[in-house]
Amino acid sequence: MRKLQIMIVLALIAFANSVMADALPSWNDGTTRTAIIDFVERVTKPGSTDFVPVDERIAVFDNDGNLWAEKPVYFQLLFAIDRVRELAPQHPEWKEKQPFKAVLDGDMEALVASGKKGVLELVMATHSGMTTVEFEQTVSDWITSARHPTLKRPYTELIYQPMLELLSYLRDNGFKTFIVSGGGIEFMRPWVQEIYGVPPEQVVGSSIKVEFEMRDDGPVLTRLPEIDFIDDKAGKPVGIHKFIGRRPLFASGNSDGDLQMLQWTTAGSGPRFGLIVHHTDADREWAYDRESHVGKLDKALDLAPANGWTVIDMRKDWHRVFGFEAQ
Amino acid sequence: MRKLQIMIVLALIAFANSVMADALPSWNDGTTRTAIIDFVERVTKPGSTDFVPVDERIAVFDNDGNLWAEKPVYFQLLFAIDRVRELAPQHPEWKEKQPFKAVLDGDMEALVASGKKGVLELVMATHSGMTTVEFEQTVSDWITSARHPTLKRPYTELIYQPMLELLSYLRDNGFKTFIVSGGGIEFMRPWVQEIYGVPPEQVVGSSIKVEFEMRDDGPVLTRLPEIDFIDDKAGKPVGIHKFIGRRPLFASGNSDGDLQMLQWTTAGSGPRFGLIVHHTDADREWAYDRESHVGKLDKALDLAPANGWTVIDMRKDWHRVFGFEAQ
Repeated sequence: MRKLQIMIVLALIAFANSVMADALPSWNDGTTRTAIIDFVERVTKPGSTDFVPVDERIAVFDNDGNLWAEKPVYFQLLFAIDRVRELAPQHPEWKEKQPFKAVLDGDMEALVASGKKGVLELVMATHSGMTTVEFEQTVSDWITSARHPTLKRPYTELIYQPMLELLSYLRDNGFKTFIVSGGGIEFMRPWVQEIYGVPPEQVVGSSIKVEFEMRDDGPVLTRLPEIDFIDDKAGKPVGIHKFIGRRPLFASGNSDGDLQMLQWTTAGSGPRFGLIVHHTDADREWAYDRESHVGKLDKALDLAPANGWTVIDMRKDWHRVFGFEAQ
Repeated sequence: MRKLQIMIVLALIAFANSVMADALPSWNDGTTRTAIIDFVERVTKPGSTDFVPVDERIAVFDNDGNLWAEKPVYFQLLFAIDRVRELAPQHPEWKEKQPFKAVLDGDMEALVASGKKGVLELVMATHSGMTTVEFEQTVSDWITSARHPTLKRPYTELIYQPMLELLSYLRDNGFKTFIVSGGGIEFMRPWVQEIYGVPPEQVVGSSIKVEFEMRDDGPVLTRLPEIDFIDDKAGKPVGIHKFIGRRPLFASGNSDGDLQMLQWTTAGSGPRFGLIVHHTDADREWAYDRESHVGKLDKALDLAPANGWTVIDMRKDWHRVFGFEAQ
């Protein structure tokens, strides 16, 4: 009975794949789309020398600037700014202390000058002092109500439609999709299932320490104002190893923060795929790379050709950027 | 097409469930087996007030003494002892330094006296100084060749057959099964898929730090002699939160090291299940609890009734302990 069930499911999946001529509809025909589809067909075709068993089809995606936008600054920073403003009355010392002062003064330049680590510290500090359950609720409330400062849309609409299709396409082909982001793991987990179809346990990210505490009304996990792990740059292969425990088959990023993840992934034996989102579309999204203070793409762009990484030219390769655009 | 496929799969799963009268064949009829099956039916029955969506059916299992045996000492310690003996010529200082001296002298009592943390340090120290790929190979070689000191069987045969059936039964009912062990995460990952049907990315455990390094022949992750995380006692809910990011529905352990995991799991809203393996069978396995130096079960046993946790009486509840016993 179990064997029959498995055979029917496999037959249905094979049939579904065969009619998937319309994979990646928001991608223009061209070398980028073709490279992705060729790779997936190569590793999923039974009997092919490049065939990879389903269990080993791990795909990792950076989040900021790769699955959703990251301008004018990382969206988690905009969340943190809202939190700083809300919590400021309880923290009079923030008026004189960077990077909090910059937030309260609305001085975005000073904030950016504090660097990614400073920004992460700000994020972590404003995200602590409550239980994990309370924080999850705070994030859930924010993600449904907040609006992007210039585009005036919910952040969950600022997801790249072609990347959503790529996530689905990979899953339809037996891949297990993970997010591997420099962003906070607990900032992403409350909404990734609904928005990306990625379950919370398939998110790797930066984290602060939490502590188990037995209170009178039961156990809680308290969030401490102390960084536990930064999942960026050389931290990304470490995070992948720690949380996933095997080398991905497919990695997608958009900045030098993803360089080591791309190197680690594509250095594996057998077929591997490295993908870079290059932001080249100032009309529909933003255009930036080597000089940008968020999502700086410099070294990884230089190293892409020698490593065989595929670079997405957003303007040329994507028929649509966001789901709300006319088809 | 996709909808039809999903409907057929769901129908097949429902049918498979309806004929699963033979679930848990190595469990004797009785209150323990009934409690498990009643719980699973309650949370999986569509329309039931206790129904839990598939996505949220997370089950966590301790490993040592819960899925496989742990006597005379944790099996990972026996692996570490083999490693210490192999590496000793390169470490003359170990002759005078505990807990290494105890290992080289074959002085198990002195080793046990160094405590769980000391033992973990020993394990971590002997597990470092190589790449992650090299370590994985070392573990894979050991697990296929090593034999238990008294039972003279491969460690992978010292798995509790009833627990294997429980893992399968839960998965057949839509649960995602995780291991949450005080043991080393990288000691378990190479063999859990084959032995337990649990993929490496669904293992939570203790870890040492690793570091990304770009060598001439490509990137590696180097294992450092520094503890990163101890997934035991109050660390277990922290590990569950860090790696899984949601509260389990079902938790199974066998010692006070699992107490906080059981508390955290069953404090969740709605139906939850806490399960304890009580080692009561000196003939077929071992009998131990409050006074044991491994798998000490004292506080958790006292707290079980008030918390509604189900306690397995190994002698009474299990028809077979190991798979190699006659059926």
